Amino acid sequence: MHVNDLPTPALVVDIDLLRQNLETMASVLPGERLRPHVKAHKCTSLAAEQEALGHASFTCATPREILGMIEAGVGDDFLLANEVIDPRRLEALAAVQDSASIAVAVDSEETLDAAERAGIRDVVVDVNIGLPRCGCDPKISGRLADSARVRGMRVRGVMGYEGHLMMVEDRAEKKRLVEEAIGVLAEAHEDVGGAIVSAGGTGTFDLYAGTAVTEVQAGSYALMDTYYGGLGLPFVQAVWVVGTVVAVQPKWAVADVGLKALGMDHGNPTIAGHKVWFCSDEHVTFAPDDGTPAPKIGDRVFVAPAHVDPTMAMHETAWVANQYGEVLARWPIDLRGW
Amino acid sequence: MHVNDLPTPALVVDIDLLRQNLETMASVLPGERLRPHVKAHKCTSLAAEQEALGHASFTCATPREILGMIEAGVGDDFLLANEVIDPRRLEALAAVQDSASIAVAVDSEETLDAAERAGIRDVVVDVNIGLPRCGCDPKISGRLADSARVRGMRVRGVMGYEGHLMMVEDRAEKKRLVEEAIGVLAEAHEDVGGAIVSAGGTGTFDLYAGTAVTEVQAGSYALMDTYYGGLGLPFVQAVWVVGTVVAVQPKWAVADVGLKALGMDHGNPTIAGHKVWFCSDEHVTFAPDDGTPAPKIGDRVFVAPAHVDPTMAMHETAWVANQYGEVLARWPIDLRGW
Repeated sequence: MHVNDLPTPALVVDIDLLRQNLETMASVLPGERLRPHVKAHKCTSLAAEQEALGHASFTCATPREILGMIEAGVGDDFLLANEVIDPRRLEALAAVQDSASIAVAVDSEETLDAAERAGIRDVVVDVNIGLPRCGCDPKISGRLADSARVRGMRVRGVMGYEGHLMMVEDRAEKKRLVEEAIGVLAEAHEDVGGAIVSAGGTGTFDLYAGTAVTEVQAGSYALMDTYYGGLGLPFVQAVWVVGTVVAVQPKWAVADVGLKALGMDHGNPTIAGHKVWFCSDEHVTFAPDDGTPAPKIGDRVFVAPAHVDPTMAMHETAWVANQYGEVLARWPIDLRGW
Repeated sequence: MHVNDLPTPALVVDIDLLRQNLETMASVLPGERLRPHVKAHKCTSLAAEQEALGHASFTCATPREILGMIEAGVGDDFLLANEVIDPRRLEALAAVQDSASIAVAVDSEETLDAAERAGIRDVVVDVNIGLPRCGCDPKISGRLADSARVRGMRVRGVMGYEGHLMMVEDRAEKKRLVEEAIGVLAEAHEDVGGAIVSAGGTGTFDLYAGTAVTEVQAGSYALMDTYYGGLGLPFVQAVWVVGTVVAVQPKWAVADVGLKALGMDHGNPTIAGHKVWFCSDEHVTFAPDDGTPAPKIGDRVFVAPAHVDPTMAMHETAWVANQYGEVLARWPIDLRGW
């Protein structure tokens, strides 16, 4: 089958570009130095590609992601980098603790209570290092670790996410800010103990040499999006939502890739050689740049999403193709939902 | 079960408010005057509520929506208000033409070719009435209708969508602009023929008295969102994504409703009594307004989406509750995907 034969909208992964990204990252952060974030693709087949390059420890955002990875037999060490207090989901994780190493992020006595009641054995103290989201005040991190130990839990270390620094453009400034944030995390780590100091993301992946960080939680690097694409990182766009042109007018054309097929929180997607006017539920309206031939009804267009994580979560299937457009595999996006 | 016991994020529909919206609409546009748009909810159980109030004809955006409605036995007359040239999907529609009335929108010779080849019997000519998307130049609408008849197809009428006018705030100005757009559609209808003149949406639902329009394609009115909520329409918010507060800090709190659970193209969602700061993949960070008690970990928050259509498409299930939070039913959102 060829990409031109797929029913559209079709999420298409270029396997060579994906592998190029995975190899670039593995060369900088080999093995356990990278804990790939599953939330960026929600696809166990893609995670298996990451595992084949030597990464066996994964970051997950939801219990379902961890359970699905274990079911698929991909990875053997999971960090739930998210606060969960739902007893049923925590119990489901506790039930598979003998199948894989599972550590759950905690940032309060309440999250510790929930983890303890469910029988979770290992925790990581999630420390706020600047992004106003989860993560405890660094000053109480040691107290939380003590509380975990009193409850009989193993404290595996600390994590933090300096998400507010991913998009800083000046590299020297970014490095300075990341080191400042990681300084806070390292100080918390002294109070907490444990082997893990987990942080970072695609936008900062190469800024941790010489810091306390033992592993980086990057995810977007594998498939990329136009938002991260503007940062000059050594990763290339490897996923598109392929659409069919269904209408052509003198000033615009319309393809069947709409906002139900695209994560829109970072704005409109991009079509090379064209200007995107706007997205509707099932459509993108766009116009060719000067010099780009006018599209014809039936043409395929490759729409690059502005934000890869939610885009993946909207599709049932990733079609895996080579540079000639030959479809080599169908990967279920099997970790969707909650 | 109570809403407080649902695993979160949970899409929750208030059945009484939903029915209030459906009744308000049915009183203005009874029976076939309304052709409810299924794309706004993608849920056959909700469509059955619309049918129970007397609407048996539905608008759909995808072939899957029509096939799912027929399979569920809801509705008997469907308009595919979208241009499709995929032969497999058109053939799948053609295969069920004896089970229900199905009319397919066409706006070009190419879309007519595709419909003819698949054996589609009935078409509606989609006319551009101002929104730069699908729909033919009104001047060629008669020619397309003739071409359809030459091919042996039945021409059921015309449709147009004045989506660019939904958000005009001044009612007199909106009425004038809608009448102007419908004037274009009515002129095309004279060239095309057929019984159907289909147009409009929730934002313009009550502006068609005395016009050529025979049916209105509203969808959002059933559940509403904060975008349409700003228009002063007689419909109320009837759907929320319910989350659990998982972290509380002095200046903000975090609940587990993120941008993978919310259509974000119209911006951030809303939480009554709070300010939403931002959404991440799995989280909303928010802060209480002055006078609102600080949230506690484990509290439930009701997050109102800014755009209902893509929000629905992100969830597997709509939980149906009453005003006391008792969960009365679980409705599968069974028309997702393509």
